[in-house]
Amino acid sequence: MNTQAIPALTLGDINGIGPELILRSASVLPAGTCIAGPRHVLAHYATLLDLDLPGHWRFDESVAILPEHIRPGHRSAEAGEAAMASVRSAVATVQAGQADYLVTAPLSKEGIAAAGYTVPGHTEYLQQLTGAPEVGMLLAADSLRVALTTIHIPISQVAARITETSLTRSLDLLIRSLAQDFGLPHPRVAVLGLNPHAGDGGVLGTEETTLIHPVIQRFRTAGHRVEGPFPADGFFGSGRHRTFDAVLAQYHDQGLIPFKTLAFDEGVNVTMGLPIIRTSPDHGTAYDLAGTGRARPHSYLAALRMGAELVHNRQSISNPA
Amino acid sequence: MNTQAIPALTLGDINGIGPELILRSASVLPAGTCIAGPRHVLAHYATLLDLDLPGHWRFDESVAILPEHIRPGHRSAEAGEAAMASVRSAVATVQAGQADYLVTAPLSKEGIAAAGYTVPGHTEYLQQLTGAPEVGMLLAADSLRVALTTIHIPISQVAARITETSLTRSLDLLIRSLAQDFGLPHPRVAVLGLNPHAGDGGVLGTEETTLIHPVIQRFRTAGHRVEGPFPADGFFGSGRHRTFDAVLAQYHDQGLIPFKTLAFDEGVNVTMGLPIIRTSPDHGTAYDLAGTGRARPHSYLAALRMGAELVHNRQSISNPA
Repeated sequence: MNTQAIPALTLGDINGIGPELILRSASVLPAGTCIAGPRHVLAHYATLLDLDLPGHWRFDESVAILPEHIRPGHRSAEAGEAAMASVRSAVATVQAGQADYLVTAPLSKEGIAAAGYTVPGHTEYLQQLTGAPEVGMLLAADSLRVALTTIHIPISQVAARITETSLTRSLDLLIRSLAQDFGLPHPRVAVLGLNPHAGDGGVLGTEETTLIHPVIQRFRTAGHRVEGPFPADGFFGSGRHRTFDAVLAQYHDQGLIPFKTLAFDEGVNVTMGLPIIRTSPDHGTAYDLAGTGRARPHSYLAALRMGAELVHNRQSISNPA
Repeated sequence: MNTQAIPALTLGDINGIGPELILRSASVLPAGTCIAGPRHVLAHYATLLDLDLPGHWRFDESVAILPEHIRPGHRSAEAGEAAMASVRSAVATVQAGQADYLVTAPLSKEGIAAAGYTVPGHTEYLQQLTGAPEVGMLLAADSLRVALTTIHIPISQVAARITETSLTRSLDLLIRSLAQDFGLPHPRVAVLGLNPHAGDGGVLGTEETTLIHPVIQRFRTAGHRVEGPFPADGFFGSGRHRTFDAVLAQYHDQGLIPFKTLAFDEGVNVTMGLPIIRTSPDHGTAYDLAGTGRARPHSYLAALRMGAELVHNRQSISNPA
């Protein structure tokens, strides 16, 4: 139990800051760390940025990447294809038991679309590759965990997508993930309202009374410690989130604005519902920083650390002392 | 110019924390402060909470409030009517030149509805009373100012209410208020996107490209320093707001979540577009605290201070040195 968990690391977009983040994390990565791609990509960035490339990492040379496609800061279909090949390699490595968890580096949604992929991003692709029935996104930091009922959809579609089914699925997935991944068998969960002032008694919207409140009541009746719906605007400023293990927000910006405001550099994206453990930093490819040596590894280091904690938590539940 | 600006203070809901907030601010209120209501209301709370009632305040005894209607923590139609009568009194006092600015204490939207009022709150009532053509809400703290394109409407209606007209009106009102009230003749204004990731190039919504970007461009062409649309989620966490004089958010929670997270106790609500200056704390009646002596006057004191600053700024512009 005290041996260090081994991560499998994707390259992310080879022209974003992913390779640099891996190199800058060398001091905390254990021997046997699996890099889901060929050595020459990291060697290129190590030379470019004058960083060390440790000799004890394992590489997957079967991920085909041509040296001439490494062009820091440039979005391309080739880089999109390489990013997805790296994801496939890392998933296979974890599924084969050669690594304990997966940390992905940022890829470009436009890049993978240019390469012909129709999935919008990592989360959905990992669901496909692992055959997980339900997956969801949890933003986690030491002081705050936020999950979302709806994620990457226009604001005009949000209200229609808040349904009994979607709310129940989100709450269920969150509660199971808190138990399995975070060692919280009876988590306290706060649910935010959809509308301003959580609808203000129906004056500013009815979803709170017709949908959200009844779903919360059903979870409470089933013995879960779920509360809400809370008005979202004052919830975080008043420190209310500190009395809960996690917060379920109803849409992207409602959850991500406070999360990034409170936990900007330490935020980690955890995919709930996968058979394997996957974490990632909560930022993008940062093409404007790629190759400059100015990438900040805080969120990536937090993703590595949290992934290892999740491995430990799942092992503790499988093998109680 | 160095004489202290005189405020006119509404009682707010007489069964909320408004009267206590006034009493707790006694040490910073100048002689001649106008209380928009009868002396006996404040005397009741001064006795109840063991607070001083200064002798140099002026009261409006024509605002009829029966002592038996003072019942801390209880919502009532009588308290709703008293709150609105107090607003009328304070506006008349400022319009007559007996006070320099107006600070309102919280009222209950349900209370004023029970008293037969159809306006949703202070802002709209002040617009009626003063005949202002356009008004808007600005949340202001020392480090952050946030205005909203849409305010108290359900999320399901937000997208439809983001129009060329509403965006233009909001930006115009904000820029004029920053110049007139805050002494910023050429303000830098950031505009947030409506959708996640500001639409992500159209994948997550089209309003950014079809509506918001063109309106911003027109303001830029006219010489204004307006930028955006910015993805809202990382905007505040990255500290980007500190490089702007104000931020225009597209809907209530998008603006108020980060504002209250970053400026919880010092937030002030400023009504833009009124011929008179009006500020208020950014919290509600807090019935649960009324009469207990536990009200926190931070936001109310900030509203008093900011109102006086706005008086000074408008005078400086009218009478440049």
